[in-house]
Amino acid sequence: MPLLVMKFGGTSVATLDRIRRAAKRVGREVANGYDVIVIVSAMAGKTNELVGWVEETSPLFDAREYDAVVSSGENVTAGLMALTLQEMNIPARSWQGWQVPLKTSSAHASARIEEIPTDNMNAKFAEGMKVGVVAGFQGISEEGRITTLGRGGSDTTAVAFAAAFGAERCDIYTDVDGVYTTDPRISDKARKLDKIAFEEMLELASLGAKVLQTRSVELAMRYKVPLRVLSSFEEYDPNAGTLVCDEEEIMESNVVSGVAYSRDEAKVTLVSVADRPGVAAAIFGTLSEGGVNVDMIIQNISEEGRTDMTFSCPTNQVARADRAVQEARENGLINYHDIVVDNEVCKVSVVGIGMRSHTGVAAKMFDALSDEGINIKVITTSEIKISVLIDRKYLELAVQALHDTFELEKTA
Amino acid sequence: MPLLVMKFGGTSVATLDRIRRAAKRVGREVANGYDVIVIVSAMAGKTNELVGWVEETSPLFDAREYDAVVSSGENVTAGLMALTLQEMNIPARSWQGWQVPLKTSSAHASARIEEIPTDNMNAKFAEGMKVGVVAGFQGISEEGRITTLGRGGSDTTAVAFAAAFGAERCDIYTDVDGVYTTDPRISDKARKLDKIAFEEMLELASLGAKVLQTRSVELAMRYKVPLRVLSSFEEYDPNAGTLVCDEEEIMESNVVSGVAYSRDEAKVTLVSVADRPGVAAAIFGTLSEGGVNVDMIIQNISEEGRTDMTFSCPTNQVARADRAVQEARENGLINYHDIVVDNEVCKVSVVGIGMRSHTGVAAKMFDALSDEGINIKVITTSEIKISVLIDRKYLELAVQALHDTFELEKTA
Repeated sequence: MPLLVMKFGGTSVATLDRIRRAAKRVGREVANGYDVIVIVSAMAGKTNELVGWVEETSPLFDAREYDAVVSSGENVTAGLMALTLQEMNIPARSWQGWQVPLKTSSAHASARIEEIPTDNMNAKFAEGMKVGVVAGFQGISEEGRITTLGRGGSDTTAVAFAAAFGAERCDIYTDVDGVYTTDPRISDKARKLDKIAFEEMLELASLGAKVLQTRSVELAMRYKVPLRVLSSFEEYDPNAGTLVCDEEEIMESNVVSGVAYSRDEAKVTLVSVADRPGVAAAIFGTLSEGGVNVDMIIQNISEEGRTDMTFSCPTNQVARADRAVQEARENGLINYHDIVVDNEVCKVSVVGIGMRSHTGVAAKMFDALSDEGINIKVITTSEIKISVLIDRKYLELAVQALHDTFELEKTA
Repeated sequence: MPLLVMKFGGTSVATLDRIRRAAKRVGREVANGYDVIVIVSAMAGKTNELVGWVEETSPLFDAREYDAVVSSGENVTAGLMALTLQEMNIPARSWQGWQVPLKTSSAHASARIEEIPTDNMNAKFAEGMKVGVVAGFQGISEEGRITTLGRGGSDTTAVAFAAAFGAERCDIYTDVDGVYTTDPRISDKARKLDKIAFEEMLELASLGAKVLQTRSVELAMRYKVPLRVLSSFEEYDPNAGTLVCDEEEIMESNVVSGVAYSRDEAKVTLVSVADRPGVAAAIFGTLSEGGVNVDMIIQNISEEGRTDMTFSCPTNQVARADRAVQEARENGLINYHDIVVDNEVCKVSVVGIGMRSHTGVAAKMFDALSDEGINIKVITTSEIKISVLIDRKYLELAVQALHDTFELEKTA
């Protein structure tokens, strides 16, 4: 029996009524002859509520307890989805992460999937079950504790199941009808893309486009899982949404495919760090062990053997970063005079596979920002993207200006 | 190290602030030299919300999915309690039912505890953990599915842990400061009891006094677990609350200790049942298999080989009862002409160990009800209680009248 993975995000299961609508889509695919694995997120807002409670209870929380708490939202929707399907006379049952068991690393709050045994669920399919419903976002560590995969982790759960079970396709149902050239809430000229390359999607996802979790795209790319992003609020259309696929399947690439942003960034500077070999490794090793996701890094020109080391990270990891470097300083591992934090920055990026064969994209981008009077604080580039850190108040202006400059409202 | 079990009900963990207050009580016992196992309910209202969603999704729900959904509330509070204790520098961690693992029967939604292995948690105590926090109400079946113990099941979890770990005492923190002669919301003459016998508490609990789950009292009685019911909202007092204990420890028993009630009862009559041996067994066997908790039973006088069979059950089990007997009729197992349901009844009971040695309690009870013009529909009695089924609209009136009649406002 061909198998499909269908993932429904938080807004798609926000109410009992929406769960019923989602279940009808599942029912349609069952009628089309598919066995289906459904991955569900928590009802919209639930995970935020739980995270808020944890953070209020314990600012530097034990991530094992965080995981135990925040994973509960998905358990609710998994059970309700199974019940809804049963009411439609579709044989279904729910699985929580530990029941699969979806085995992960012990990196709580951002665990990585290690293994998804298929025997258990395949046996149920063989017995006549048509739909296995799985609570997304969660797994179990070797120690038997509940783990979560990081925010948006249900996308990764979905792609991992699609890869493990050899699914024909992985459909990600969400509250937008596909991947856009930029966030339509920021630019009304944003245009839906019919196809986008894995590599581009990867950059867009990691840059904060929020449509898909980065790791889900990585996984899809590695295991060649055809991935479709589509809305659960539109009429059924077999060709709806945006297909995330191999570069080769896209005839003519735009130089720039999209403008992404990440709003809640912080710029952290360690002032007057001893400038000698191994210092950068010590600092960023310390931050990595402290669970800080460092993004951009710049090192100033050295003066008298000392330098400033600047990096960016999400604003909610600043406390963690601060603690990690302070501890490292107390232990004599690193040395700096002061730590300066700018919590009011954001990151804006342009992404496009076409950049590989086109020059002048960076200059065009910097010109556009300069024309708007926007000062660039940090720049990083990769083969297919250019990112800048700017004051947060300029976010919308920058995105709109870049969307215009690269004429993203026009089809290729 | 002496061990204490402390259970906090839904109102005691309804907010982060209340969780902190509860954690302070735990901290005080840790300071007193105890290791503590904390059992938590879901935040007040959460379980009702989840049950509502399940029932709205699927009126005749798959109890396995019901359990998966409704158990999630306790997972949240267990994690938050562990985090709160950690913030107070008390080494603590949470356990979900399947992690203990608290092994139960497969009777979903009303599973029975079969085993609580102690090795895992005792090893953590040996490593220096001071508090193990356990999500109440839930366990795991042999099939690896999540089970729940029925509403109020966290009390049973608490007593079972106290028995398994040989706890010195099991303190049940709730929103009332003890066990009363009746519900103080119904009679302002209700009086708090300092002590009550296990047997009396058992009748009061099963009759709907709602202070403790019936099975928790049964367990406490069987394993001689000293059980204390007290408020989490009052100042600390080592002698607070009501002690539920052996009959021998109570000097002078009242004839009647309390008036209990159960509001949402239904009276179901199977009209014109063939009156021959085995029929009652067939009917009530059918209902039992259908998961219906039949309470009172009466059989009318037989006429021409047929009779009416009446029973009571909670109103929310009527649909289930209806389905069970209809299926049994279709399969030729039982035979009746019609099923008549009265959803507007309630049960009121008087309870007291002293009844064993006093006569005339029933007559006094029926007189009191008759004086108020309340018609009695069904009567059942045991050694230490008398229960009647009456129209629901008379509930408050009946409770008040009986409380007055037996002068329960006076101490023994």
